[in-house]
Amino acid sequence: MKKSLLALLSGAALSVATVAFISIPITAQEASVEAYALTKRQKENVNLLIDRGLAGNGAYELLESLTTEIGPRLAGSDAEARARQWGVEKLKFLGFKNVRIETFEIPYWARVVEEASIVAPFAQKLEVTALGNSVATPTEGITAEIVRFETLSDLIEAPMTGFEDKIIFVDEIMTRTQDGSGYGWAVAKRSGAAREAGRRNALAAVIRSVGTDRDRRSPHTGNMGYTDGIKKVPTAALSNPDADQLTRALAYAKKNKSGPVTMRLRVEVTTKEKTLSGNVVGEIPGKTDEIVVVGGHLDSWDLGTGAIDDGAGVAITTTAAKLVGDLKEKPTRTIRVVLWGSEEVGLFGARAYAQAHKDELSKHVFAAESDFGAGKIWQLQTRFGPKSAGKAITMARYLRRIGVGPGGNEARGGPDVSPLRAAGVPVVTAQQNGWDYFDLHHTPEDTLDKVSPEDLSQNVAAYAALIYMASEMEGDFRD
Amino acid sequence: MKKSLLALLSGAALSVATVAFISIPITAQEASVEAYALTKRQKENVNLLIDRGLAGNGAYELLESLTTEIGPRLAGSDAEARARQWGVEKLKFLGFKNVRIETFEIPYWARVVEEASIVAPFAQKLEVTALGNSVATPTEGITAEIVRFETLSDLIEAPMTGFEDKIIFVDEIMTRTQDGSGYGWAVAKRSGAAREAGRRNALAAVIRSVGTDRDRRSPHTGNMGYTDGIKKVPTAALSNPDADQLTRALAYAKKNKSGPVTMRLRVEVTTKEKTLSGNVVGEIPGKTDEIVVVGGHLDSWDLGTGAIDDGAGVAITTTAAKLVGDLKEKPTRTIRVVLWGSEEVGLFGARAYAQAHKDELSKHVFAAESDFGAGKIWQLQTRFGPKSAGKAITMARYLRRIGVGPGGNEARGGPDVSPLRAAGVPVVTAQQNGWDYFDLHHTPEDTLDKVSPEDLSQNVAAYAALIYMASEMEGDFRD
Repeated sequence: MKKSLLALLSGAALSVATVAFISIPITAQEASVEAYALTKRQKENVNLLIDRGLAGNGAYELLESLTTEIGPRLAGSDAEARARQWGVEKLKFLGFKNVRIETFEIPYWARVVEEASIVAPFAQKLEVTALGNSVATPTEGITAEIVRFETLSDLIEAPMTGFEDKIIFVDEIMTRTQDGSGYGWAVAKRSGAAREAGRRNALAAVIRSVGTDRDRRSPHTGNMGYTDGIKKVPTAALSNPDADQLTRALAYAKKNKSGPVTMRLRVEVTTKEKTLSGNVVGEIPGKTDEIVVVGGHLDSWDLGTGAIDDGAGVAITTTAAKLVGDLKEKPTRTIRVVLWGSEEVGLFGARAYAQAHKDELSKHVFAAESDFGAGKIWQLQTRFGPKSAGKAITMARYLRRIGVGPGGNEARGGPDVSPLRAAGVPVVTAQQNGWDYFDLHHTPEDTLDKVSPEDLSQNVAAYAALIYMASEMEGDFRD
Repeated sequence: MKKSLLALLSGAALSVATVAFISIPITAQEASVEAYALTKRQKENVNLLIDRGLAGNGAYELLESLTTEIGPRLAGSDAEARARQWGVEKLKFLGFKNVRIETFEIPYWARVVEEASIVAPFAQKLEVTALGNSVATPTEGITAEIVRFETLSDLIEAPMTGFEDKIIFVDEIMTRTQDGSGYGWAVAKRSGAAREAGRRNALAAVIRSVGTDRDRRSPHTGNMGYTDGIKKVPTAALSNPDADQLTRALAYAKKNKSGPVTMRLRVEVTTKEKTLSGNVVGEIPGKTDEIVVVGGHLDSWDLGTGAIDDGAGVAITTTAAKLVGDLKEKPTRTIRVVLWGSEEVGLFGARAYAQAHKDELSKHVFAAESDFGAGKIWQLQTRFGPKSAGKAITMARYLRRIGVGPGGNEARGGPDVSPLRAAGVPVVTAQQNGWDYFDLHHTPEDTLDKVSPEDLSQNVAAYAALIYMASEMEGDFRD
């Protein structure tokens, strides 16, 4: 079954001009490995799955159903419980076996009231949302002078005193990137602003939303955490236009000598120490007990209907797995779809899954989560053992016709498979185009209209091909 | 001068949600290194340089002059020689010292005629351009049946016979990416199509342009190379809409049983074994003989006016270096601007520079080329020694206010510094947003109107700050 593609690929060396752009091997020759050779039948099946994925296949309808019949589904809420029932029904209807809910408990947090305004010198309302896990303000809110920092680093380097009666504002911008890396740099302020404000005994912290939109008054929520031993201050995010407005107000007030800019912030929340959440699991049984895990997370933030985060991932992976199950021949490995619960509030479903299945993790040969919207997949990243490099080359080669290139061997695999990755399970990231993702992420704008059916289908095609290859390739991806 | 920023940054850990996106350390803590601490004066200078860069600074005017007064400047042409004179005059005018031309010889190639058409069954003209270094067709052109392959891999795996009287068409698409990695995957066909056609004794090869535009009838040129011992066939690129049209013609002809699709290709070229080219060099002398090298390449393809490739790089790095030279205090290291010649046709200037300066390469402490257009810089990649990781963290930290994040330690540095990198010189890539770059690259559309003055200024700001920090940071970047 293994035969060298090296001879076939041997001429496909890189032109000198490419050296500026990539450091990732794109051919077997470059990687100095023997590419994994699919059989003729396997190649046909891969292309058949891609064609079926591209032709439309029910993924959009599944996403439409979830975002309409359930809508927002905050971790631990009744809506999330309804989403689990929805998941069970859909998986059964689509022919998955061993469909079940695996429950776990989480602490519950929900927003009740969130309000902000400039009080003086230019009184006006601001659009704001509480960050997940924030403590409340007093009922009457907090009214205080606002102090702005251009970046979180500037705040970190600021003096430790002089802010005791202030609200701290971290205005750091987020850079638009295709790969989501701008989020990594920008999101540090979500917990960092409150932590640094708390350290300085300030009254509250507000941040410019962690998002790349500039012209929508939709603030971005998202989870934050407090640091033990540091004062917990309420924390909230202004929409990007409101952060611009507050920055301008500060500039005008300074220029006109209109005195300090004061702001009022009011946050009311409800919490429970424990509430129920769960993962929904379904399988396409294979000929062996080895497991290929794919999925998306079922919970969403409460502001939108969770179309891109992460209804899309649920729809893509479920549909792709079904397409593999629809092939004439039973898959070699068992395809397990996991619709994770309570991702947004701290990867509770991910950890519960890894714990509940700890005795069979050695049988998990491959894992991937789709959790970055519904943009076209442009890059296949893997995290395989060194002897499996040829399998990565081959996977990318067969996705080439739908615009997917190789992406190196440092894949993260998605947030909900991170405990599996940490336990040594090989993962892939089918990297989606995230150019617009953070315009919408964690806002009321995360709704179905933002999803392109054509792009969604390309995702299904890629996942179906990947799942099939992961199921059928001989040997392990660990080695 | 070195003092730990670790304490300051110690709280800025990543939120759990970021794990999906990045594997690059963004803080000193994550990287487990001591961040390099700038002095108060150095911090002020960095921010001053950024402000001056952002405020407008002559870069756009320099680019306007080059693309207007010289325009296209093919490697080895009279226009490239005029561009060198232009470079000398501008560098002297801007106050650079030791301004000179360092000449070298290259083989010369230029297009004379390039024509393509569908002959039957749907006679019509196609927009096409010869690839650099292509051999000519016979004067009357080649008329033959066209055979299409969806990807280069498909052609590589095709039989070795049956193509002797055919023109081979490789229709592989290029994926749009921010980091240019789509080019790496797609460009393989530029030499690969001709090589595989030659191996099969086919008559010629045409490719879908290596470009991401879909709706402009501007074919993309670019250099190609032949493989020793394999028949040299003429090779050319269709514009993306023309590749679509040819693909549709093949589909219609098959469906309607209209017989084979035949194409006529005519390419006429002129070549010289040797012609003169050169690099333009100018310096801002420092207090020491250590050298910081920055620059862009002066030559361009002949089809456009070389605004994004690479007039922008010339303008950005020259202006940034001048801003550092304008500071009150002389830089510690010598800032050397190199405007490389003959990049497009095989990095001749890059190799000539490395050869001419081989005895002082050990004094080259830092090198970077700007050669990816004029889009905003979004990521700072470095290739420093392990003990210099703290310097990379600090460089990224001070570029954060203009939207630049950290990008790992595997920088390529740009094509013209690749021989320096290979010789161990530390490099950085100030990674520009290349989302639209390959819509324009190597086409008649590469003209001044595509450059945003605002984005160009952000580049100048970033380069000025980088050059300054590279000049002033104590110790080496190699260790």
